[in-house]
Amino acid sequence: MNSFGRLFRVSVFGESHGEAVGVTIDGCPAGLPLTEEDLLTDLERRKGGKQKGTTPRQEPDYPLFRSGLFNGKTTGFPLTILFENTNTRSEDYSRQRSIPRPGHADWVASQKFGGHEDYRGGGHFSARLTTGLVAAGVIAKKLMPDIQINALVTAIGGEKDLEKGLQKAIDAKDSVGGIVECRVSGVPVGLGEPYFDSLESLLAHILFAIPAVRGVEFGTGFAAAEMFGSEHNDAIEDADGRTRSNHAGGVVGGITNGNELVFRLAVKPTSSTPKEQESLNRETGQVEKFTIRGRHDLCVALRAPVIVEAVTALVLADCMLLEQRIKKIF
Amino acid sequence: MNSFGRLFRVSVFGESHGEAVGVTIDGCPAGLPLTEEDLLTDLERRKGGKQKGTTPRQEPDYPLFRSGLFNGKTTGFPLTILFENTNTRSEDYSRQRSIPRPGHADWVASQKFGGHEDYRGGGHFSARLTTGLVAAGVIAKKLMPDIQINALVTAIGGEKDLEKGLQKAIDAKDSVGGIVECRVSGVPVGLGEPYFDSLESLLAHILFAIPAVRGVEFGTGFAAAEMFGSEHNDAIEDADGRTRSNHAGGVVGGITNGNELVFRLAVKPTSSTPKEQESLNRETGQVEKFTIRGRHDLCVALRAPVIVEAVTALVLADCMLLEQRIKKIF
Amino acid sequence: MNSFGRLFRVSVFGESHGEAVGVTIDGCPAGLPLTEEDLLTDLERRKGGKQKGTTPRQEPDYPLFRSGLFNGKTTGFPLTILFENTNTRSEDYSRQRSIPRPGHADWVASQKFGGHEDYRGGGHFSARLTTGLVAAGVIAKKLMPDIQINALVTAIGGEKDLEKGLQKAIDAKDSVGGIVECRVSGVPVGLGEPYFDSLESLLAHILFAIPAVRGVEFGTGFAAAEMFGSEHNDAIEDADGRTRSNHAGGVVGGITNGNELVFRLAVKPTSSTPKEQESLNRETGQVEKFTIRGRHDLCVALRAPVIVEAVTALVLADCMLLEQRIKKIF
Amino acid sequence: MNSFGRLFRVSVFGESHGEAVGVTIDGCPAGLPLTEEDLLTDLERRKGGKQKGTTPRQEPDYPLFRSGLFNGKTTGFPLTILFENTNTRSEDYSRQRSIPRPGHADWVASQKFGGHEDYRGGGHFSARLTTGLVAAGVIAKKLMPDIQINALVTAIGGEKDLEKGLQKAIDAKDSVGGIVECRVSGVPVGLGEPYFDSLESLLAHILFAIPAVRGVEFGTGFAAAEMFGSEHNDAIEDADGRTRSNHAGGVVGGITNGNELVFRLAVKPTSSTPKEQESLNRETGQVEKFTIRGRHDLCVALRAPVIVEAVTALVLADCMLLEQRIKKIF
Repeated sequence: MNSFGRLFRVSVFGESHGEAVGVTIDGCPAGLPLTEEDLLTDLERRKGGKQKGTTPRQEPDYPLFRSGLFNGKTTGFPLTILFENTNTRSEDYSRQRSIPRPGHADWVASQKFGGHEDYRGGGHFSARLTTGLVAAGVIAKKLMPDIQINALVTAIGGEKDLEKGLQKAIDAKDSVGGIVECRVSGVPVGLGEPYFDSLESLLAHILFAIPAVRGVEFGTGFAAAEMFGSEHNDAIEDADGRTRSNHAGGVVGGITNGNELVFRLAVKPTSSTPKEQESLNRETGQVEKFTIRGRHDLCVALRAPVIVEAVTALVLADCMLLEQRIKKIF
Repeated sequence: MNSFGRLFRVSVFGESHGEAVGVTIDGCPAGLPLTEEDLLTDLERRKGGKQKGTTPRQEPDYPLFRSGLFNGKTTGFPLTILFENTNTRSEDYSRQRSIPRPGHADWVASQKFGGHEDYRGGGHFSARLTTGLVAAGVIAKKLMPDIQINALVTAIGGEKDLEKGLQKAIDAKDSVGGIVECRVSGVPVGLGEPYFDSLESLLAHILFAIPAVRGVEFGTGFAAAEMFGSEHNDAIEDADGRTRSNHAGGVVGGITNGNELVFRLAVKPTSSTPKEQESLNRETGQVEKFTIRGRHDLCVALRAPVIVEAVTALVLADCMLLEQRIKKIF
Repeated sequence: MNSFGRLFRVSVFGESHGEAVGVTIDGCPAGLPLTEEDLLTDLERRKGGKQKGTTPRQEPDYPLFRSGLFNGKTTGFPLTILFENTNTRSEDYSRQRSIPRPGHADWVASQKFGGHEDYRGGGHFSARLTTGLVAAGVIAKKLMPDIQINALVTAIGGEKDLEKGLQKAIDAKDSVGGIVECRVSGVPVGLGEPYFDSLESLLAHILFAIPAVRGVEFGTGFAAAEMFGSEHNDAIEDADGRTRSNHAGGVVGGITNGNELVFRLAVKPTSSTPKEQESLNRETGQVEKFTIRGRHDLCVALRAPVIVEAVTALVLADCMLLEQRIKKIF
Repeated sequence: MNSFGRLFRVSVFGESHGEAVGVTIDGCPAGLPLTEEDLLTDLERRKGGKQKGTTPRQEPDYPLFRSGLFNGKTTGFPLTILFENTNTRSEDYSRQRSIPRPGHADWVASQKFGGHEDYRGGGHFSARLTTGLVAAGVIAKKLMPDIQINALVTAIGGEKDLEKGLQKAIDAKDSVGGIVECRVSGVPVGLGEPYFDSLESLLAHILFAIPAVRGVEFGTGFAAAEMFGSEHNDAIEDADGRTRSNHAGGVVGGITNGNELVFRLAVKPTSSTPKEQESLNRETGQVEKFTIRGRHDLCVALRAPVIVEAVTALVLADCMLLEQRIKKIF
């Protein structure tokens, strides 16, 4: 199903080359001041287009509110936001149909949906659907003014000097992966549950919904596997639960402990590499060489931070409502 | 909430020092042959006790079916399985109350539940609740005889030679973390969805529900962040979707592609290290030195594989039912 | 939350005087042929406008598909359908604000949503949101070509002669209630579950979501309370489960038995009666006489049958998918 | 699925002649004082046994808490309560297998579950599962000390003089149906939502889960279908929303308006009538006469009130939590 969240529930719909993509947010408290302009900064961040390594293609990302707003405030009913797809030239997708692109969903989608999926430009799998997530994220952030969420690219192609990592890709005429780190301060103690609704579970669930994410780790993460217990344990130092170190990344037993929430994601290199590739031609039954046309991001990790912040905000807003830390009437 | 799954839904309950822990499985097709004995092998694996590095404490893990079985087969109604807690000496937990153990949920639980939580031995946070997951996992595995799920510890304390890693911990009189890798063969094409119900999302959700898991990665995972697209992309080679390499770990666009499903988890060192530690004494308001008593696993990663297999089976059974690949009457 | 359904899930959004109302259908199998024209007959039935007793006001009910369709077939991804609100004159709602209309949600909505609700013309409470239900119902019906669902008004104002019942209301210059009966043939055995997901539970849940419904009964319904067991029991007569009588209305133990599914609804008289009424004036604090302006249905029950059919189809499609009686690829 | 509720979620399990029946309550706030004794009064009411018209068979209804309680208070984690089935003589059910009882689920269950269901004494369909609902209802009631829920049988066999109605059944040597009315005072304004989660939808959903319920109506209910709008509308009289009449039964637009909540249920006559009946013998393929043995309630409506109160409490507690009117720590 295309929905996520318990009390703050987000549903996405749309295909990249259909009429529109969009999002419905159900469960947003009534009375939150909101304008289309509020969304533009984060939507702009998602688009990239000015950053080196992101595609210059401009997408028409203006949010059209279709419900849930009245007199400049949320009504307490579902907010539906559309992003119309105006920039969709009627290209020739027959080649993509016959040669499923490696790293893309072309082949699995046609198997799963019997060839009925909208295969143009990725269809429902397209990263264009993250516009809805980003829009919803802005709303979630506004509900939690005391929480600061900041995601950053911390490495590209294994290089912490990002320029260098990108240049490597440019030189190689190839796409490249990266690491995104997210830090959240101002998180109250007590969000999340033991077991299935651990905060890590909820966050990892939606982080892995972001296209191209291949790994998620909290606190010291994979490095914890190489540590001793006495090194990893964070000594509690005061009545507010502040810890001397923060190897846990702010979550213990599935529950936030009031320290900074810290996690990282691995983003794979853009599947649409400029390099020549090989794949099965379904018509001939032969493996063929081919090249993906058009302009694509060299490093999709560069677009990820605003999406990571958004989905983090969605999870936190949901938990905050559940803990009665956001009022039903804002 | 303490439930997980859409059509094959598992709910856990219980506290480690209360009457019992247990699990309810709702949505299991009718007609599956099942006996208590079927569960014993995996329950035994979970217990450890014979392995170096796991605690010799024997837990009473005999499964008591309380519903959902008739004439040796599942009825199609909820299966409730209890594990009674017979081995629970009435110890003195007052010290644990005053000094919340680092790395454990003691402090966050008392904050979140107002001190009403059953704090004895971890209560509902205890790894003892994974008995229910393992039991449910056996049932899920039986529903999918063509799928093979194998999880292994691949590193301890950074050492691929596991004996060596463990010896390091024994020598240091400390606990130590590890890496678990899971490989699944026989997975049909088409499990999972784009976005929120991506197979990675579902798996990561429940993998992070396992106590002590700090990171999850699929396929090449974090290493993908350092690769070029031309390296990472897996060329499709035949009409069954077999790929030349398997950097994707068997999932593309959130959907299984029929290749081996591969993922890894980082398990932190056991929080109950034998080493002396420091934490706040809530009564004195001072940070104090203290030592955790009793026998504890040096490396909880050693117990994890059977739990990882179980929760993987739960997710796959759920997806298989959703894709109508398991019949309602088995 | 504004969603309903487990595998065939319908979500509504919108306000009657906002930009649009609409519906998202998630879980519709891929490959179902569908055009906007398919929806028009049922949408026309919902509008009324030609029937005596329904308002002549024409609403702009043309369905705009925004996602989920490609090459004239469903893609397997969410279908979002919009109905734009073009006919919304900027009326003066200040009087409605100060005097909450009896029988309407004006007062409860302002209490619950802190005055932030869109109060114009009923807002999210408006029966205009049933356009989305009707649209979704058409799609559900198309998924089940072997099932025939027919709902009819069987009484108006206590009169089985409907003309007579309506004339009573016209003569009295008042609105009037009615009874709707729904009969479904071709229902397979085995839909529904004991207890919480009984077919009656699922149907009643969504039937009571239709504005103005005050009672729901299955089979002999309330009359069963006056019967002896030997009268009410339906003798099973053959291996297909056909029963001699059908007092159960086709559902036993929460599960369909293959006989005709029969249920009835009580629809209250339109709250917007032409008669003078009394209510509190919130500004003066006094109870005042007032009259509702504009054209309104004398008997909303007349518009209900197509909505009843639609929501019945939604429940049945959901159960049929759950029982694996509709394939994932149509 | 055998669960109900969003934030206060109840799951039932068990078969009448298996090991046990039981209930798990997930989402109960921490800190509620609770003992097994608290449940006994309502469990006793459910049993009947002293009332004319109910079976003298005593069931072993002592509640065994298996989780979620500590130091006499709820912990905030799932409460699992078992009722062991000690009184289950190993009877001969072969006759019931061959001749499915009219009005019972015997035939539909065997069709739906392929003959794997536990058919002894109704199995999972047995009214014995309502013990869990009653237990959960007591807990829900305790969470809402300001709300009074009272359900009563108001008619038996069409007679408001209940003795007379029952005597009719005794004279006829037949079972008989009845009407149950429930009135709830102290309900705050604002519970329930428009459309799918209307309070009527939620209540009707779970009321129709009670075995033998055939109709549900709110306020004037079916009588509303015969009324004029000017009669049915309830004039609002003061700032608290008090209405002159209460035809709406306390719910408008799906939301409570602070007036008394009133609804009624039709309960069919006990399917196990003492009268000789006819049904198909599945072995011979012939319709045969047969008589149901054993002691059965003449009028199951007599046992219904405490169950109706319980499920009403479950819905209200769920809504109260959702509206943040019950704190997470009680």
